Amino acid sequence: MHPIVATLHAELGPGKVSTEPSLIHEYSRDRAPDRPEAPALAVVFAESVQDVQTTVRECSAAGVRIVPRGAGSGLSGGAHAVANGVVLSLERMNRILDVRVDDEVAVVEPGVVNADLNAAAAPHGLMYAPDPASFTIATLGGNIGTNAGGLRCAKYGVTRDSVLALDVVLADGELVRLGHATFKGVAGYDLVALLVGSEGTLGIVVGATLRLRHLPVAIRTVAAFFPDLPSAAAAVLAVGRARVQPAIMELMDRASIQDADRLNGTDFAGRGGALLLIQTDGFGAEAEAAVVRSVLAAAGGELADDGDQDAERFVRIRRNNRGSGREDRLRVGEDVAVPRSLLVDYAAELGRIAREYRVGMKLVAHAGDGNLHPTFWAEPEPGREAEAMEELEKALDESVRVALAMGGTITGEHGVGTFKLRWLGWEQQERVRELARGIKEVFDPQGVFNPGKAI
Amino acid sequence: MHPIVATLHAELGPGKVSTEPSLIHEYSRDRAPDRPEAPALAVVFAESVQDVQTTVRECSAAGVRIVPRGAGSGLSGGAHAVANGVVLSLERMNRILDVRVDDEVAVVEPGVVNADLNAAAAPHGLMYAPDPASFTIATLGGNIGTNAGGLRCAKYGVTRDSVLALDVVLADGELVRLGHATFKGVAGYDLVALLVGSEGTLGIVVGATLRLRHLPVAIRTVAAFFPDLPSAAAAVLAVGRARVQPAIMELMDRASIQDADRLNGTDFAGRGGALLLIQTDGFGAEAEAAVVRSVLAAAGGELADDGDQDAERFVRIRRNNRGSGREDRLRVGEDVAVPRSLLVDYAAELGRIAREYRVGMKLVAHAGDGNLHPTFWAEPEPGREAEAMEELEKALDESVRVALAMGGTITGEHGVGTFKLRWLGWEQQERVRELARGIKEVFDPQGVFNPGKAI
Ligand SMILES: Cc1cc2nc3c(=O)[nH]c(=O)nc-3n(C[C@H](O)[C@H](O)[C@H](O)COP(=O)(O)OP(=O)(O)OC[C@H]3O[C@@H](n4cnc5c(N)ncnc54)[C@H](O)[C@@H]3O)c2cc1C
Ligand SMILES: Cc1cc2nc3c(=O)[nH]c(=O)nc-3n(C[C@H](O)[C@H](O)[C@H](O)COP(=O)(O)OP(=O)(O)OC[C@H]3O[C@@H](n4cnc5c(N)ncnc54)[C@H](O)[C@@H]3O)c2cc1C
Repeated sequence: MHPIVATLHAELGPGKVSTEPSLIHEYSRDRAPDRPEAPALAVVFAESVQDVQTTVRECSAAGVRIVPRGAGSGLSGGAHAVANGVVLSLERMNRILDVRVDDEVAVVEPGVVNADLNAAAAPHGLMYAPDPASFTIATLGGNIGTNAGGLRCAKYGVTRDSVLALDVVLADGELVRLGHATFKGVAGYDLVALLVGSEGTLGIVVGATLRLRHLPVAIRTVAAFFPDLPSAAAAVLAVGRARVQPAIMELMDRASIQDADRLNGTDFAGRGGALLLIQTDGFGAEAEAAVVRSVLAAAGGELADDGDQDAERFVRIRRNNRGSGREDRLRVGEDVAVPRSLLVDYAAELGRIAREYRVGMKLVAHAGDGNLHPTFWAEPEPGREAEAMEELEKALDESVRVALAMGGTITGEHGVGTFKLRWLGWEQQERVRELARGIKEVFDPQGVFNPGKAI
Repeated sequence: MHPIVATLHAELGPGKVSTEPSLIHEYSRDRAPDRPEAPALAVVFAESVQDVQTTVRECSAAGVRIVPRGAGSGLSGGAHAVANGVVLSLERMNRILDVRVDDEVAVVEPGVVNADLNAAAAPHGLMYAPDPASFTIATLGGNIGTNAGGLRCAKYGVTRDSVLALDVVLADGELVRLGHATFKGVAGYDLVALLVGSEGTLGIVVGATLRLRHLPVAIRTVAAFFPDLPSAAAAVLAVGRARVQPAIMELMDRASIQDADRLNGTDFAGRGGALLLIQTDGFGAEAEAAVVRSVLAAAGGELADDGDQDAERFVRIRRNNRGSGREDRLRVGEDVAVPRSLLVDYAAELGRIAREYRVGMKLVAHAGDGNLHPTFWAEPEPGREAEAMEELEKALDESVRVALAMGGTITGEHGVGTFKLRWLGWEQQERVRELARGIKEVFDPQGVFNPGKAI
């Protein structure tokens, strides 16, 4: 056992440091398809800012690395354990410290689950807008670490747009406060935006001041079936041209509908080859929904009935998961984004790639943002796993290359973690990566926090 | 004449480098109340990315500093000239390169005036949302440099929320592209957000990919008079509680109303001691305005007639200026922000401070954001300017101290520049400022860009 375990145990007190094998196993990885570099030396369960500071100081002194972890629901390996490292779980720091109704602001610890903040805000007519489909499990600290998106970021923006201030423990254990408690503030560099999405490589978020929004006074759901993906994607653009701003605009292909039907007990797959789910909200919800309906009908969509219970259930289902199937090296979800006008073209390319490399493919997309989640998979005969994996990797590479060629990005919301590192250099100039490494060096000269991730 | 002048002249060709005294005078300062450190050695008018790169390379080699400049409408000294420095004007790089309607994106050069982009987007049913009251003169590069706010950022966010990608010339002349052309993207650190609001200290913005929004299908304006500031500020909170999201929510005290009446030919000052101007927009504009009207009436407001032409003129006037009076050391506009629930208390403190230090004070506020612009002034008898200035400085310091004590910030949208540097240490821990200096060092190790500003 590494000496850091005894040190942390002595410094933090009982019940906060575990080396129990099944727990180590569970906490050494998130939900990325790749494997962690190594199992964690230990899992530390911090219960206070001081616990975090102590852990950071001791690990820094001992040359032990730290992987911060929320719920481990990340899809890119950001919370995968690293060699010679402990995993620092923030899940016990889960208090909502304040909901300031008139300020439309909440103050939280990092381990608060996204849905719990929404539950606390709702009685005040407020919500926390960023809503990753993992919202019932993911923590706000993890959302901040990845700059999580979600369904309604089409209208309300991503996590970064809702984070006002952060309390952060730096690599030498010092606690700093970044940002401001007000909606606006431009004093000095925007270090909050720098921390958001930094995947635990710059500091440990131990507190956050978050902007809330009004709970919409009304919500309308429109579901429309299209013969195929291209026609549905074209309808997305038609909605934009009608100057409507949906809160949610999700696109699903036939395979994803079938998948969701199976989970859901619905029978939508028989009604079309692609589904567009749109929610409008706020005072204009009904008026916007009326425009959406007529635009979709004109674009060749077959509308589900107004107020269709199935449609609403379907949004809830979509909101709560990524479809069936845990990911591994033979089943990989992607997260590219492309300029919205190229949705149609990109969807066509995905089909071509799946055919060319003989892999399965299904697609859901946050269509309002041009953010696509294709899943590719292979189902090799026994003994042919290695070849299948190779073909699958080629399909993945090709899907990323095409997205980049269209002016897109390798990751719209899930982050780079470890799994997408091989593509980062395809997107960013070496000089840009040098700048990022320089910033990392400023925050964490010894490389204590989450080495080998994100940049 | 400094040798850099001849070098730049030779390298850039004719008509791009000026040392003409009246032009040097004009371009050596922005609209901050304080004075520039020194007149510029020369003003360079870049016409291309290459011109910028050449200027940066030559200046770096010669140890000459560079102050990037848009329209010089900044209020904090960010574009003030510095010792041993040239001013690099981007105003001639003013082409709108692309408006991609289906992507809701524009690609611009930095010298494009904010209003010109809006004019180009409008025929497509689109707008560029951030609208500082200087929008008819300020450049997008300057807006990015300061992370400018504006009236409708209550609903649509500040500049940062509309910037997707930036082309930036670094301190050694290399051109890099930061960010992504898509709405969402989380590959690596958010260097775009870091550049936005960095006041020309990290790099020269030579191109930007900006997010556009739909032009609202409808706009409603509500104006209500209140007996005094506290009652109007209380009404702001009541609007929030009604779950309405105004696009614009501006608050003016009696002195500001009088000032605007004078510019405007209106006669609002007779109707109350404080004015709340609210615009709602979009499909729900009418429904939201109806709620706003009843909330304001219940809060003791006297409503201007529905569709009041004067009220709309008043919003236009407010949108286009900061009231009369150019600023100097005896007339200083402030830019603090406080949590919204403390608007009432803070407004009361401003009154107290003005009385205590016997200075004039008027107030306008972006009330939806808790961002306040009090103006303080002194009108000393001849020969007593020095004492008056001292009292005024004390009033300013006190107004900042009180805002900070309430959890506010020294600058909501105008930036630190040179003028607010003395307060930055009141807001930020030394360690946070060290991080900022470390980042500056990564981008600009020789300190070529805008030294002595922002951080
Ligand atoms: C079913 C499902 C649906 C999903 N849907 C979405 C979606 O719609 N949109 C989306 O964006 N993502 C989605 N995800 C991915 C994932 O849920 C998000 O990335 C989420 O933000 C991770 O939160 P977490 O608490 O699980 O963080 P973790 O996975 O534990 O960590 C994520 C990253 O943040 C870092 N981190 C965690 N806590 C801290 C902290 N306190 N300080 C510093 N760094 C920290 C970690 O080191 C890691 O790099 C989904 C995942 C699943 C399994
Ligand atoms: C009447 C009036 C009303 C105003 N109202 C508002 C308001 O409502 N909201 C608000 O936020 N501000 C307001 N301002 C302040 C000012 O207009 C903004 O700060 C604006 O963004 C400055 O733009 P500019 O082109 O004039 O930039 P400048 O003043 O020339 O420069 C501003 C800063 O950006 C840097 N910079 C400029 N161009 C570049 C570039 N290409 N690359 C890198 N750095 C660059 C400069 O070095 C400087 O630090 C107002 C000013 C006036 C005079």
